This record gives sequence, structure tokens and C-alpha cells, in this order.
Amino acid sequence: MLSPAFQSRFQAIRDNKTFEMFVIAIIVLSSLLIGVRTYELSPIFENTLLVLDYAVTLFFLLEILIRMVAEDRLRDFFKKGWNIFDFTIVVVSLIPIPDSEYALIARMLRLFRVMRLISFIPELRVLVTALISALPRMGYVALLMFIIFYLYAVIGNLLFSQINPVLWGDLGISLLTLFRVATFEDWTDVMYETMAVYSLSWIYYITFIFFSAFVFLNMMIGIVVDVLAEEHKKMEVEKMGLSMEEHENFEKHVSDEIKELHAKIDQLIALQNK
Amino acid sequence: MLSPAFQSRFQAIRDNKTFEMFVIAIIVLSSLLIGVRTYELSPIFENTLLVLDYAVTLFFLLEILIRMVAEDRLRDFFKKGWNIFDFTIVVVSLIPIPDSEYALIARMLRLFRVMRLISFIPELRVLVTALISALPRMGYVALLMFIIFYLYAVIGNLLFSQINPVLWGDLGISLLTLFRVATFEDWTDVMYETMAVYSLSWIYYITFIFFSAFVFLNMMIGIVVDVLAEEHKKMEVEKMGLSMEEHENFEKHVSDEIKELHAKIDQLIALQNK
Amino acid sequence: MLSPAFQSRFQAIRDNKTFEMFVIAIIVLSSLLIGVRTYELSPIFENTLLVLDYAVTLFFLLEILIRMVAEDRLRDFFKKGWNIFDFTIVVVSLIPIPDSEYALIARMLRLFRVMRLISFIPELRVLVTALISALPRMGYVALLMFIIFYLYAVIGNLLFSQINPVLWGDLGISLLTLFRVATFEDWTDVMYETMAVYSLSWIYYITFIFFSAFVFLNMMIGIVVDVLAEEHKKMEVEKMGLSMEEHENFEKHVSDEIKELHAKIDQLIALQNK
Amino acid sequence: MLSPAFQSRFQAIRDNKTFEMFVIAIIVLSSLLIGVRTYELSPIFENTLLVLDYAVTLFFLLEILIRMVAEDRLRDFFKKGWNIFDFTIVVVSLIPIPDSEYALIARMLRLFRVMRLISFIPELRVLVTALISALPRMGYVALLMFIIFYLYAVIGNLLFSQINPVLWGDLGISLLTLFRVATFEDWTDVMYETMAVYSLSWIYYITFIFFSAFVFLNMMIGIVVDVLAEEHKKMEVEKMGLSMEEHENFEKHVSDEIKELHAKIDQLIALQNK
Repeated sequence: MLSPAFQSRFQAIRDNKTFEMFVIAIIVLSSLLIGVRTYELSPIFENTLLVLDYAVTLFFLLEILIRMVAEDRLRDFFKKGWNIFDFTIVVVSLIPIPDSEYALIARMLRLFRVMRLISFIPELRVLVTALISALPRMGYVALLMFIIFYLYAVIGNLLFSQINPVLWGDLGISLLTLFRVATFEDWTDVMYETMAVYSLSWIYYITFIFFSAFVFLNMMIGIVVDVLAEEHKKMEVEKMGLSMEEHENFEKHVSDEIKELHAKIDQLIALQNK
Repeated sequence: MLSPAFQSRFQAIRDNKTFEMFVIAIIVLSSLLIGVRTYELSPIFENTLLVLDYAVTLFFLLEILIRMVAEDRLRDFFKKGWNIFDFTIVVVSLIPIPDSEYALIARMLRLFRVMRLISFIPELRVLVTALISALPRMGYVALLMFIIFYLYAVIGNLLFSQINPVLWGDLGISLLTLFRVATFEDWTDVMYETMAVYSLSWIYYITFIFFSAFVFLNMMIGIVVDVLAEEHKKMEVEKMGLSMEEHENFEKHVSDEIKELHAKIDQLIALQNK
Repeated sequence: MLSPAFQSRFQAIRDNKTFEMFVIAIIVLSSLLIGVRTYELSPIFENTLLVLDYAVTLFFLLEILIRMVAEDRLRDFFKKGWNIFDFTIVVVSLIPIPDSEYALIARMLRLFRVMRLISFIPELRVLVTALISALPRMGYVALLMFIIFYLYAVIGNLLFSQINPVLWGDLGISLLTLFRVATFEDWTDVMYETMAVYSLSWIYYITFIFFSAFVFLNMMIGIVVDVLAEEHKKMEVEKMGLSMEEHENFEKHVSDEIKELHAKIDQLIALQNK
Repeated sequence: MLSPAFQSRFQAIRDNKTFEMFVIAIIVLSSLLIGVRTYELSPIFENTLLVLDYAVTLFFLLEILIRMVAEDRLRDFFKKGWNIFDFTIVVVSLIPIPDSEYALIARMLRLFRVMRLISFIPELRVLVTALISALPRMGYVALLMFIIFYLYAVIGNLLFSQINPVLWGDLGISLLTLFRVATFEDWTDVMYETMAVYSLSWIYYITFIFFSAFVFLNMMIGIVVDVLAEEHKKMEVEKMGLSMEEHENFEKHVSDEIKELHAKIDQLIALQNK
């Protein structure tokens, strides 16, 4: 257990704006180091990069240790998904991989440091969380889209596999070819080839394009409407909350005043009847 | 006529969640069987597939019989469109087609089993129903679009059929070429070819792209606005329904109270005048 | 001047539903005749088409005469834009053009009959009117887009005309090439060609794509927002109109009742003071 | 310091509608002059253009001087961004550049005169200001998009640089290739090439297309929702402002009237108790 004074010092470092900016600068630098490596470099520069790379690895290790120590309990640190994300990236980059043999894997792993930019800038974190939360909304439409692709892929394979096995050889390749058609990428070349054998095969392509575009369009419209309805509801709740209160206050006030009037008049009548 | 006890047992099976999941699993399996067939397979595996296929056919027959028996009257079963859809798929798959001669047709028919996934998962059923209900909304815009295509196809055939009969030979081919231009698929190749003869023919393509894109855009916007307006109306009705009732209650309450006040004061005046 | 009885008979014909359907059928038929001509035909069929064509021309002449006579004053007929549209199409088709010499022009003119479908089906007429009314909204954005295209076309001509005069030879061709780039049609071929000379010329293409896509996107969003705001206003007016009336009725009622209460109590006070 | 009478005369010229139209005409003319130059011209016409060009330069100088003099203080002139924009364009066009040597630069500079059209037509100025104000909204999504591109570009370079150095040679080229893939421009050619070596590399392309399309789609939806919410808020404020006032007036009126009723009845009770 660390002394609270010691711990609060770490918290001060973690929450310091300059430190944050410095971390972001280091993440950007490490991203640039990875990018620079894709160019032909002189051996001296190459070595400088290697040293810088070690420095960045060390700094990231330090930075995550500071954040872990700053937390009151270590458990709390691992409760946040983004912390686990950061921790994994740092730990993985510590694994000693012989640069000569598995250079590719080593560089790939280092690449994931770029993604620390997402975990470190709050606005990007919010954005990615929003994007992920938009996924389930697409779920069933994606499934329907896949069924359409699957149906057409099997039909395409049955009809056209003899004509061009490179495009329609099996289910996987057919799915890829259909994705190509869906992006309008040289889709007429694919069509003209099969039309030379089956002159009516344009029906296959046109219906596929219509179906997939139609479902896609409806998905987009559905999402726009969903998001708008959500926003609208939020605003309504805010607005209603305010004006309903004022409204009810007035109605209560009038009711009370009228009740009092009744009481007074009842009193008057009683007096009169005395 | 079946005994009710016997029938309710079938209903229990039909409505059982585990049974439902099992049916979905079998549909997915039968879809995979169809997909696997598109790959080169060893004869043993091929035979296994054949056996599995018969098993699936049998299972589907059983499943639909259970659902038919479970219904109080057989007529009710055929009242739902999706049931007829399922029934047709199962019955068609029972037709004995010699696999050697009409293998293609046999496999095509078996393929429709994949679509049972749509009829079995309620969310997909809702989605497809929604998509179909969106069709008429597009009707007249589609007709207008077709008129544009028709006009340009005839003009294209009149002007360019001598230049490239493969692209502009007759009305049908011209329509296909225009669809290609509308998807921006190598449309400049088509244009440059005709521009070599008629140097002003770019006007034809540019206006066509503008017209079709413009109408398409407006259709999309129209649909978005339509869907949004519908959603809005639904929400308004809900909101109004609630607050209007409360509102009217208050207004009625105040009116009644004031009426009573009048009565009492009239009474007072009468007393005074006595 | 025609006798009213005679005229009302023509009005009866014009407004007859069966007659309307028949006219639509004839328009569709005449459109089909034009389409059929794009195919290789036997001489006998060709002659039949010629006869049918004359019949259609005659029928259209009759139909428009009926509609002109049915109008109370001939002036009223020409007050509607769509009538002038119809009249022009019919008159132009009456001009005797020797089919052998100017066959192309004759067939082009006949083609415009297809557009009578738009003028005859009310829903299509509404749609086209709506589309035309959406044009001015795009005006200034289209101008801005054109300025961007103009700027880039001149720069493209200045820089790249030596590299490929076919694509960048003068302003007109450069504009066409940029339109091609904007539709993503083999734009990388255009780019790679110029990058071979000016290795930084990708900046030209990327910025152009960004600018044009950005302006286009904003135009689309602007239109969607515009259309939605309009719809919203319409709905608001409807809603407000109804509830405001009821609301004011209640408010007036309460005010009047309270005024009467005052009068009565004043009377009471007067009685008391007597 | 200029005499006020003298200055107001300049203001009259500046604010004169005919003068404004004339300036716009000259801007359009100067734009056309630049466009015409991209065509092969006879030497006589070429000289005429040169003279016209000098005349336009002179006119622009005069026009900006009029606007500067018309301003009460010269400082005010430079307070508006669009004035600085105009001033810079005019000053730059005055720099004497030998047309023979740096013809390209001279013509480029003259080209910016076209952009004076934007600064002179108020509607275009509003549009451009709106477009620029829409930029920050896209900021973080653009950053996220860039991170995705960066990640995939480095991976692409690591995996495919041996296969095709022209497309994947270094980070910059890889980014360009990915932009090409994102526009669906012959992206299958790029894919099939790498699939010949790594048969699973389609995963790389499909995931990239999904990620970039998904983020782009969400950006678009986000902007549409943002813009709509803003418009909605504006309308709400307007609507609320009006009806709230009327509403409160009624509520205050009723409250006051009831207060008065209380006072009168209190008076009555007092009289009775006397």
C-alpha cells in the first residue's frame, strides 16, 4: 500500500494539462516514427529511430505506471475499458521480439500505439464509443444484407462457375465478386462476360444491385430517422420538463384561488342566513 | 378432427424457445450445406452432405406439420402470408428431381431454404415487411426515372447504334448501357467513343447524369422527409393525446368551479333581495 | 361560337375516366412503337408500325381538339402550361417530314410523345412541378460548384495540357475531365499520368475531390434541412391553427365568466350598501 | 483627409446597383478572358486579350480605390475579411511579371480574380462562410478517419510493398492508394494483385472499406442531425417567444381578476359583519 501523499503526487502528474499534452506529443511522435520507417533511410537515421523507439516504449511504460499508481485501488484502473486497451498495448510492446526474424510482427505490434491517440483524446473516445453503440442498430439489416449476398453468391456460383472460375469458383470468391459489383467496380466487365453465355444474366446483376442498394438505402434512412427521433425525444423531455412545471403551477394556483373564493362565499351565505 | 389435448401438445412444441432455436440452427445448417457444395469436395463428404440434406428435408416437413396441426383450424395456418411462404418452400423441396439431370434446378430450389431464415426470425420478418411497404412510395418516381431512361435509350440508339452496336444496338441494350452510365461504370469510355464521331455528344451524357442523379436525389430526400413526417405524426399524437386530456380536464374543472361560484352568488343575491 | 350543349358533350368525353385510361393506353402504345423500331424488323411489321403511327398521330390530334373545344374559351386552354406542352408536341408531329431523308429528326420528334405520359398522369405532373420548384434552391450552390470547376479546369489546363492534350487541351475538355474525376471514373489513371511529370500533382486531385464533395455534401444537407423545415412549418401551422382556436375559446370563456362574477358581486355590494 | 462631400460621392458610386452589376460583369468578363486563353488563338485576338486584360486590371484598381475612399476611415476597410481578400487579389495582379518567362505564374495569379465573384455576390459570400463554419464540426471525425487511413497505410506498406512498390512503396503512396480504394476506383485490381501472394488479403480491403464507409456515414448522419437540431432550436425559440408571451398574458390576467374578486368578497364580508 502506498502512502496517500505519495499517491496524490502521481494523481497531480496524471491530471496535469502539460503532462497530457506531452503524452499526446509522444504518441504522435511514436506514430510518426512508424510512418518514417516506411521510407528508405540511411543506417545512422535507422539507428536513431531504434533508440527513439526504445525511449517511447519506456515512456509509455512509465506513463501507464503513473496512472496505475494514481488510482486508489488497482482494481479501479482495470474497470475502465480504455485503460485495459492502453495496458494491453503497452504490455505487448514490451515483449522482446527479435527484430531480424519477426520484424513484420514487431512493427505491426508497435503500430497499435497509434490507436492510443484514440484512447487519450476524450473527443475521439466519445466518437468511437458512439460509433460502437451504433453497431447493434445495423445488426438485423446487416443480416438481411448477408442473406441477399449469400443467395446471389450461391446462384452465381451455380450458373457462372464454368464461365469464370476466378470470379465464381466457390462461395467465398462469389461473395467477393458480389461485393465488387455492389461497389460498382468494373461490374459491367463481370456482366458482359456472363452475358456472352447466358444473354439474360443481366437480370441477375440488375436485381442484385437493386436489392442491395434498396436495403442499404433503407438502412441509412432508418438510422437517420432513429438518431433524429432520439435527439428529438431528448429535446422534448427538456422542453416539456420546464413548461409543464410552469403550466401546472399556474393551474394549481388558479384552482387554489377558486377554492378559496368558494370558502369565502360559503362563509357569506352562512352569515346571511344567520 | 384432432383431440384438443393432442393439439395443445403440438402447440407447446411450436412455442417452445428451445425448439425455435433448434429450427433456426437447422435452417442455418441447411444454408451452410448449400454453401459448402460450391467447393470441391471428397466423394465421402459429398455423400454425407446428401444424407444430411435428406435429413433436413425430413425435419422441415416435420416442423411444418407440427405447426399445421398446432393450429386450431387448418385454414388459419394458410391465412398468414409467411406460412404459405414456408409451406411452398417445403413442398417444392419434396418434389423428387433426379439430381444427375436437373442438378442445377434441384440445387436452386434447395437454395430457397435460406430464405426461411427471414420467415423464422421475427425481426427480419418485420424488416422485410417494412421494406415492401416502402415500395409504393417509390412508385411514381420510379416511373419518371424509367421515362427518362426510355427517352435517352431511344435517342442513344438513334444516334450511336452505328458507332457501337454492342452498346447501343437496340432499346434493351441501350437501357443497360444507360444503367451502366448511371452507376458511373467506365462511362467515359462509352462517351469518348461517341465523341470521336459526334464531338458534342458529351451533352447527352452530362444531361442524362444530371437528370437521373437529380431525380434520384429528390426521391431519396422525399422518402427521408416522408418517413420523418410519419414518425413525427406518431409522436405528436402520443404527446397530444396525453397533454390534451390533462389540459381539457383542467379547463373543464375551472369552468365547473366558476359555474358553481355563479350559482352561489345568485343565491346570495336572492337572499339579500328577500 | 359553339352551342353549349355541343360543348358540354365534349367536356363529358374529356372528363370520362374510360377515355382518360384509353388516352394513357395510346400514349404507352405510341411509346412502345418508338421502342420497337430500335429492333431489326420484317418489312411487313415495319409497314404495320407506319400505319399505327399515323393512327396515333390522328388520335392525338382528335384528343387535343376535344380538349380545346371542351374549354369555354380557347384562351383558357392555353393558360395552362401543360396544355401548351401537349399542343406543341401534337402540332410538331403533324409537320410532314420525308421519312427517308430526315428519318432521324422525324423519329426524334415522335419520341417527345413519350413525355405526354408526364403531362397526362397527374401524379407525374405534380412530381415534375416539385422537381422544377427545387431547382432555384440549388442555384447559388451550383454557381459556387461551377466556380470551383472553372478554377481547377484553368489550372489543370495550364499545368497538364502538355502532358495529355486529349484530357487537358482546352477549358471545355478540362471541365469534362474534372467532371469525370468528380464521378471517380478512372480518376487515378488521370492522376498517375500527371504524377509522372509533376510528382506533387496528387494535391490537385485530392483537393478538388475534397472541395467538390464537401460543397456537394453541404448542398444535399442544406436541401434536406430546407425541405424538412418547410414540412415542419406546414404541420405547425395546421396544429397551431386548431389548438390555438380551442385554446382562445377557453381563455375567452373564462375571462367572460369572471367578468360576470365581478358584475354580480358589484351588484351584491351595492345591495348591501343600500 | 478627404472632404465629406467628396467621400459621400464615392459612397454613392459604391452603393449604386448599376455600378455593382457592372463590376460583376467585369469580373465575369475577366474570368472569361482567362478561360478563352486556354484555346488556340490568332495573334490579333491574343493582343486584344492582352489589352483587355490591362483594362480589367486598371478597372479593378479603380473599383477598390473607390471602395477604400468611400470608407470613413481606411482602417474600417481592412476590418472586413472579404475586403482584405479583394485587396490582396488586386495588389498581386499589379506586380509586373514578365509574361514570357513566368507566364504560368502570371496566369495563375490572374486566375484568382475569378474568386472575386464569391466576394462580390452576397449569397455566395454567405454560402462560403457557412461552408467554412461547417468545418470544425468535421474536425475530430476527420482525425479519426486519418488514424484509420494511417494504420492501414502502414500495414499495407509492411505487407504489400514487395508486391507492388508503385502502390505501396512508402507511407505517402500507400495513403494515396487507400484513398483510391475508398473511392472504389479500380480497387479490385489492387486487391487481386495482392491476393495472388496473400490469398487472405481481401480481409484487409473489405475491413478498410467497411471502417472508412462506416465512419464517413456516421459523420454525415451526425452533421445532418446537428444542422437539423440547430434549425429546430431556432424555430422553437421563435415559436416559444411568441406564444409564451400571449400565454403568460392570459395567466396574469386571470390571476389579477381572481385577486380582485377576493378583494371585493372580503369587502362584502366586512360589510356583513359590521
